[in-house]
Amino acid sequence: MTAAAIPASHRDLLEAPGVAAFTTIGASGYPQTSAIWYLLDGDVIRTSLQKSRQKYSNLVADPKASLLIIDPANPMRTIEIRGDVTLADEHDASQLRLVAAHYGAPLERFPLGDRAVMTLTPRRVRVTG
Amino acid sequence: MTAAAIPASHRDLLEAPGVAAFTTIGASGYPQTSAIWYLLDGDVIRTSLQKSRQKYSNLVADPKASLLIIDPANPMRTIEIRGDVTLADEHDASQLRLVAAHYGAPLERFPLGDRAVMTLTPRRVRVTG
Repeated sequence: MTAAAIPASHRDLLEAPGVAAFTTIGASGYPQTSAIWYLLDGDVIRTSLQKSRQKYSNLVADPKASLLIIDPANPMRTIEIRGDVTLADEHDASQLRLVAAHYGAPLERFPLGDRAVMTLTPRRVRVTG
Repeated sequence: MTAAAIPASHRDLLEAPGVAAFTTIGASGYPQTSAIWYLLDGDVIRTSLQKSRQKYSNLVADPKASLLIIDPANPMRTIEIRGDVTLADEHDASQLRLVAAHYGAPLERFPLGDRAVMTLTPRRVRVTG
């Protein structure tokens, strides 16, 4: 399946260092949503996940996810991406460094330990506002 | 199953007229997340949904949902509710009126038409920050 395109009208929401609501599906069948930092890389979304987190386990079992960003300046303006996730072992906190730099946050702020690079390829993109 | 309690430490996030990321699960198995307005009513969350919307159809087929609120003043502070949804026909836009009043928004701003009262009963509550 090819990746869905990200419309130019809302690309700024993915480029800014904002907070996204990221959802995976748990073993019990309930969606699980948490706030994440992320990076737009071309037409995919990437971030660094701790392997100890529930969302990592959920994605190993079911790699379908959604990401919603609400414009902080106008909550009627949103972009939602639904897509497929791939996970790869992260070495030397390489992805975490990129994310931390994008947000201007010191690396020391994050727990290191076992991490994975999460890549979300958009299959469906919906925008409002 | 009894409802999970909402901790006093984060109850303000549910009481304020904020925007939540609300997730249902679509027929294709992907989570679907959109921004919603809502009301805390005791220990449940209620809102008014247009029956024509995808999230309504998703909930008819699978009544499991999640709701995430990110504190606009501190994005590290969040509350997530996972729970079970019930849907009831809405008459005279009664729930919509309550929501609109809470947000100080004129009723004319919303599409009327066929609507349902959505009630989310928390089964699991997670807070950060």
